[in-house]
Amino acid sequence: MPRPTIGIWLVGVKGGVAATTIVGLCALKQGAVDDAGLVSQLPQFRGLGLADWSRFLVGGHEIRDVRLFDEAMRLVTESRVIGRELVEACRAELDLIDQRTRPGTIRSVGPTIEQFASAGVPREESPRQAIARLQKDLSEFQQSHGLEHVIVVNVASTEPPLDRSLLPASWPELERELDGPAGGRLPASTLYAIAALDLGLSYINFTPSLGSSPPAVGELARLRRTRHMGCDGKTGETLLKSVLAPLFFCRHLPVMSWVGHNIFGNMDGKVLNDPVNKQTKIASKDRLLGQILGYRPQTLVSIEYIESLGDWKTAWDHVHFRGFLGTPMTLQFIWQGCDSLLAAPLVLDLVRFTELAWRRGELGALTFLASFFKSPYEVDQQSFIHQFQMLEAWAGRERG
Amino acid sequence: MPRPTIGIWLVGVKGGVAATTIVGLCALKQGAVDDAGLVSQLPQFRGLGLADWSRFLVGGHEIRDVRLFDEAMRLVTESRVIGRELVEACRAELDLIDQRTRPGTIRSVGPTIEQFASAGVPREESPRQAIARLQKDLSEFQQSHGLEHVIVVNVASTEPPLDRSLLPASWPELERELDGPAGGRLPASTLYAIAALDLGLSYINFTPSLGSSPPAVGELARLRRTRHMGCDGKTGETLLKSVLAPLFFCRHLPVMSWVGHNIFGNMDGKVLNDPVNKQTKIASKDRLLGQILGYRPQTLVSIEYIESLGDWKTAWDHVHFRGFLGTPMTLQFIWQGCDSLLAAPLVLDLVRFTELAWRRGELGALTFLASFFKSPYEVDQQSFIHQFQMLEAWAGRERG
Amino acid sequence: MPRPTIGIWLVGVKGGVAATTIVGLCALKQGAVDDAGLVSQLPQFRGLGLADWSRFLVGGHEIRDVRLFDEAMRLVTESRVIGRELVEACRAELDLIDQRTRPGTIRSVGPTIEQFASAGVPREESPRQAIARLQKDLSEFQQSHGLEHVIVVNVASTEPPLDRSLLPASWPELERELDGPAGGRLPASTLYAIAALDLGLSYINFTPSLGSSPPAVGELARLRRTRHMGCDGKTGETLLKSVLAPLFFCRHLPVMSWVGHNIFGNMDGKVLNDPVNKQTKIASKDRLLGQILGYRPQTLVSIEYIESLGDWKTAWDHVHFRGFLGTPMTLQFIWQGCDSLLAAPLVLDLVRFTELAWRRGELGALTFLASFFKSPYEVDQQSFIHQFQMLEAWAGRERG
Amino acid sequence: MPRPTIGIWLVGVKGGVAATTIVGLCALKQGAVDDAGLVSQLPQFRGLGLADWSRFLVGGHEIRDVRLFDEAMRLVTESRVIGRELVEACRAELDLIDQRTRPGTIRSVGPTIEQFASAGVPREESPRQAIARLQKDLSEFQQSHGLEHVIVVNVASTEPPLDRSLLPASWPELERELDGPAGGRLPASTLYAIAALDLGLSYINFTPSLGSSPPAVGELARLRRTRHMGCDGKTGETLLKSVLAPLFFCRHLPVMSWVGHNIFGNMDGKVLNDPVNKQTKIASKDRLLGQILGYRPQTLVSIEYIESLGDWKTAWDHVHFRGFLGTPMTLQFIWQGCDSLLAAPLVLDLVRFTELAWRRGELGALTFLASFFKSPYEVDQQSFIHQFQMLEAWAGRERG
Repeated sequence: MPRPTIGIWLVGVKGGVAATTIVGLCALKQGAVDDAGLVSQLPQFRGLGLADWSRFLVGGHEIRDVRLFDEAMRLVTESRVIGRELVEACRAELDLIDQRTRPGTIRSVGPTIEQFASAGVPREESPRQAIARLQKDLSEFQQSHGLEHVIVVNVASTEPPLDRSLLPASWPELERELDGPAGGRLPASTLYAIAALDLGLSYINFTPSLGSSPPAVGELARLRRTRHMGCDGKTGETLLKSVLAPLFFCRHLPVMSWVGHNIFGNMDGKVLNDPVNKQTKIASKDRLLGQILGYRPQTLVSIEYIESLGDWKTAWDHVHFRGFLGTPMTLQFIWQGCDSLLAAPLVLDLVRFTELAWRRGELGALTFLASFFKSPYEVDQQSFIHQFQMLEAWAGRERG
Repeated sequence: MPRPTIGIWLVGVKGGVAATTIVGLCALKQGAVDDAGLVSQLPQFRGLGLADWSRFLVGGHEIRDVRLFDEAMRLVTESRVIGRELVEACRAELDLIDQRTRPGTIRSVGPTIEQFASAGVPREESPRQAIARLQKDLSEFQQSHGLEHVIVVNVASTEPPLDRSLLPASWPELERELDGPAGGRLPASTLYAIAALDLGLSYINFTPSLGSSPPAVGELARLRRTRHMGCDGKTGETLLKSVLAPLFFCRHLPVMSWVGHNIFGNMDGKVLNDPVNKQTKIASKDRLLGQILGYRPQTLVSIEYIESLGDWKTAWDHVHFRGFLGTPMTLQFIWQGCDSLLAAPLVLDLVRFTELAWRRGELGALTFLASFFKSPYEVDQQSFIHQFQMLEAWAGRERG
Repeated sequence: MPRPTIGIWLVGVKGGVAATTIVGLCALKQGAVDDAGLVSQLPQFRGLGLADWSRFLVGGHEIRDVRLFDEAMRLVTESRVIGRELVEACRAELDLIDQRTRPGTIRSVGPTIEQFASAGVPREESPRQAIARLQKDLSEFQQSHGLEHVIVVNVASTEPPLDRSLLPASWPELERELDGPAGGRLPASTLYAIAALDLGLSYINFTPSLGSSPPAVGELARLRRTRHMGCDGKTGETLLKSVLAPLFFCRHLPVMSWVGHNIFGNMDGKVLNDPVNKQTKIASKDRLLGQILGYRPQTLVSIEYIESLGDWKTAWDHVHFRGFLGTPMTLQFIWQGCDSLLAAPLVLDLVRFTELAWRRGELGALTFLASFFKSPYEVDQQSFIHQFQMLEAWAGRERG
Repeated sequence: MPRPTIGIWLVGVKGGVAATTIVGLCALKQGAVDDAGLVSQLPQFRGLGLADWSRFLVGGHEIRDVRLFDEAMRLVTESRVIGRELVEACRAELDLIDQRTRPGTIRSVGPTIEQFASAGVPREESPRQAIARLQKDLSEFQQSHGLEHVIVVNVASTEPPLDRSLLPASWPELERELDGPAGGRLPASTLYAIAALDLGLSYINFTPSLGSSPPAVGELARLRRTRHMGCDGKTGETLLKSVLAPLFFCRHLPVMSWVGHNIFGNMDGKVLNDPVNKQTKIASKDRLLGQILGYRPQTLVSIEYIESLGDWKTAWDHVHFRGFLGTPMTLQFIWQGCDSLLAAPLVLDLVRFTELAWRRGELGALTFLASFFKSPYEVDQQSFIHQFQMLEAWAGRERG
């Protein structure tokens, strides 16, 4: 097997999505699983020269003091979503990644996330100090493993929302104010993004947290001739919305109301149970309907923590629409998916597509990845199939 | 209001879809309803020069001996899907269409449909005689109302299936054998299609019946320099399949099984309760999954007649798919739509688009209409959004 | 038809439940509808001597300035739950009841309800003055129509919750403090209850509001030798809980979580959209699971106002339980019922059973009516079938 | 641990229900699982003197040539319903039961079941010979393990239906005709029942097959002073029907139609995919609605084999009912349960209750066990809660 040359640096490396991504990557390397769920393995992306699984090496930041193997086993015993044998076969790899884990930062993550932080996570550093420390971790990871490039992916818990208009619009201004009031507002996700992009690394924000979404941080990406994309992986209920809403639009069936109730019980759910953190997520889930339909029906989105469900995210959506002659009709759907298992393959896909974009020298927001996100940066198109066509068109261009 | 110049000739003019189409057209002329459900009223089709509602006049064939007003009222009192005031305001128009109704044919429609035929429907005519009689009705309709063109739309009950390979492949052969064994096999829907196309009229098959689908009949359309399209209006469960299956394909989530149970209680349901007639429908509903996914998951489609539901067609679909690492997950949906109210606006859309195609001189199968049908003639693409893009592209070309 | 001798006095006489009750009673008198939904018409209650529909005359209190006919028509045009002909046939009766309506009270009903009050509703009266005024209305109603007895039923909007421990435990104490701090806390529903019971009338609380539930008010009922019962009519999701929870108990299937989301769009829903008023309702809906199961699973109950649904209350419940060997399983149900049409027949049933209890001289809380309520006064049994057996047993005793 | 003194003889000992029962009994003996799902462990049955788990020893008949451990592992790997560690901990016990397994009979089981039979299953024996052989197996089991009593439980696949009126009404007649036409019609399940009862053993029919339901076989039970009960364990959709239908009855809500679609993918499902075998099951599932409601709504019950679901039985039920003023409303439920895990604890409960009935000398049909069955012998009551009250009343009597 060839030596890995590309690093995947996961922010929140011991959470459920990360654990599943790591077990999955390990199982793929071992040939223990097939490629179900992996978009990058579809026939239309063959011949693009996407990197093999063996090319990737994982490390990451984490604020909790847990063992990756234990976290992965919870998906076996509590949520019953992964086979025990898969996790056991990856045990050595999981233990190695424990050693490639560094303490993250909890700047402006809010009290619900803070409570999980271990003693080793610094409490007193300034934004500038935090960025420097995170960059040191990233550089050491890259150098000690001789990696050609590192892709940083944020899969940490969702932070409370921040009003982006409070931040300076340009990178030079933001850079100047890093230790002033503007910098003080920056949540951890943005500090990781700055740390990565400033080093010329690629950055992917898989969560609804602020990450690289401020224009000033996007500018940094272009200044450092690197790339980024986000935000908020589109895995379940919102994915369905982005598939079904175009139907109502194309058939001219006015949606009167769209109600979506989500229940699940993993760590992510525990954090989202804080109304402040939940607000960030709900805004991201709720935005796209208006964009697709061209008007704003009454909407309701709830996300509730129901412990017994573990990783099984269950969504009930009730769509009430007007048919011909004004007659009201109803579509309801019930989605029962494993949150981490829906997210993890997309993380791997994003890393592979981003790695290719790095080799091809693409800069700024990777808009062709819009179909992976609930709130894609710099893209207004919210219809999933149209977004997917953007990916196919990019692949077509890449192949020439 | 300008004089109507385009005829809509409905085969099965007193069935639920026809009654709803007629009440709807009447209400649109009166400005009593808005354009919910009408695809042709979408912004992207403005400026195409589609005909106004006032341009259309309705007549039709029917085998039952009922009054159109009574049929329309059943949608008010039994199914509770149309407001009473809408039907009452159209009463005069409904009574006029009773006068513009001629006896249909029941050749090879099977015993379940035959039992509904009134005494006035001929029992003894040959295929050639039937075609001649139907053509006489069509020509009288066109001439007596001074219509520039007539579009024949089949909205009659679903016939038993026929093996198309038993029919001659070319129109001259089929024409020769009309009163022989091949002609004897032709069901009513195909006789209507031949009658219409041979006169140069346009023909739309909104049902899964054979209609104009035999190659020989398609050839006739081109020979007579006219146009046709079908088949089987895509209104509910199958529409959702054609929207959701592409999601599973694009996300590389292998579908293991897709179960769909449909229940409803209108006349259409009564006919489909006959296993032979049902077979035609189920084949049409079941085909597209394999075409979209590229493999054939286990599928099950049922359609059952539940009297109390009337026109409310309820579908429960259970999709069982494999996620990352092989974990099975589930999507279920429940669709509660009014069958006739979903079909009727599509009939009006099809008529308007076909009328424009007539003015522009388009010939043969109108493939740009694929998104309206479960089994579109001469089109392999089954993804709804991709089909809809064909319609938008056509509109773009037409506008220039 | 015999002269009516029993009064039904509805508090909230122009709300949806009242309008439906009145149209229903009128249609029953006319023989225009059958007895679907009426428990008192079941065979097991024949021969009890329950009063005929013709025996009842309706009046009531209301705080809004609307016409009953208009309110009833909204159930025809907006919610599409009642046939137009039924309401039109009752128009004269509805107009008469407009004349038998008196202004209610808005003491301590909270701002969400207050905003609907018309100018004619007194703002400045003390609790004692309010009671005296309401009693004057009740006495005039009884005397002017020569009624032998009047049954007051609260079907007004749900008030904010009140801590009952803040009220004196006995009637003499409460009576003394009526114009003091304790009296100042009493919400409208309790003032109506005091007014009715103090006159020896019967009182039924169909809502979760405080009503006659304080012990001091229950004491008043016994002191005045009259009767009362409540609270919160059990019509939909909670009714199903009281039927399904015993199943999980009897089969020893531990419920891990029970989530219930309710959406609807009538006036009641608008009031419950206020989190304070909603709290009263949710407490009433959430209590019974623990009482039936003997332990408290994680529960979640939401009620949300979705305007387009009108009177169609839709509930999705997700029950997650542990089976043999600890395997988690799921039951989900979707309930689509018309809120007012489920409540109205129960109001009529309660009036009939209460009238008989009055003739038989039964005093205090009518516990045999437990099956009609979410939170039955003085009854711990929450299993619906067991509660229904209490009703059957009472009927058996009454018949001798 | 005390020596086992009671035998459980499972007919179909290597099927899914049997394998789960055996693993469960083993895990209960080891204290590895709690008592979820076990009715006999409810507080109301404490103090009855039910036998401890350690008292039971398992053997059985089987027609397939498979290892019990492999069958149990399929529930781990294919259906994902049992934890791997539970099955592994029982491996020795499962291997022992392989040795206590004897070839069953396939007389009149129909071709779908026959195809699974191994070479060792006799093909040529007469009914009388079959009974004698089965009795020899039972006696050897009892004697070689020194068992005081043996309870035979039928958990084999469902046989095609048989018209019971074709059988003689009394045991002496049937006994005489065993090798004549009447005997020739007897399916395997009845031969097992005769074999057991004739030896004075107890017999429980957990399937809808004929078993001991013919009056002549019931007479045999009484003649031999033993006991039996059946039929068709009530585990999922029908259990819910028997809980929900009483609600519609008690609230006087006329059910217009009740549709139930069941899908699952275990061996039982494969057999039920044969329309003939399915007929037996559907009749059993469909009967109770009419008995509870007092009238027959339109009903539809389907059971379909969907391989990917394995042991996960999913049912969608759609109940359409008339509310007050005739307004139609809907209740739908979706049940996702593991078929074998719902059945197995009931088998253990039935064995324990039957063992106690044996000690107390109860004879004939054990009607107090009605709540466990879809079609309880000699019981008309179909409401689950009422049936459960029969069990509680029996327990009360037994306790004195």
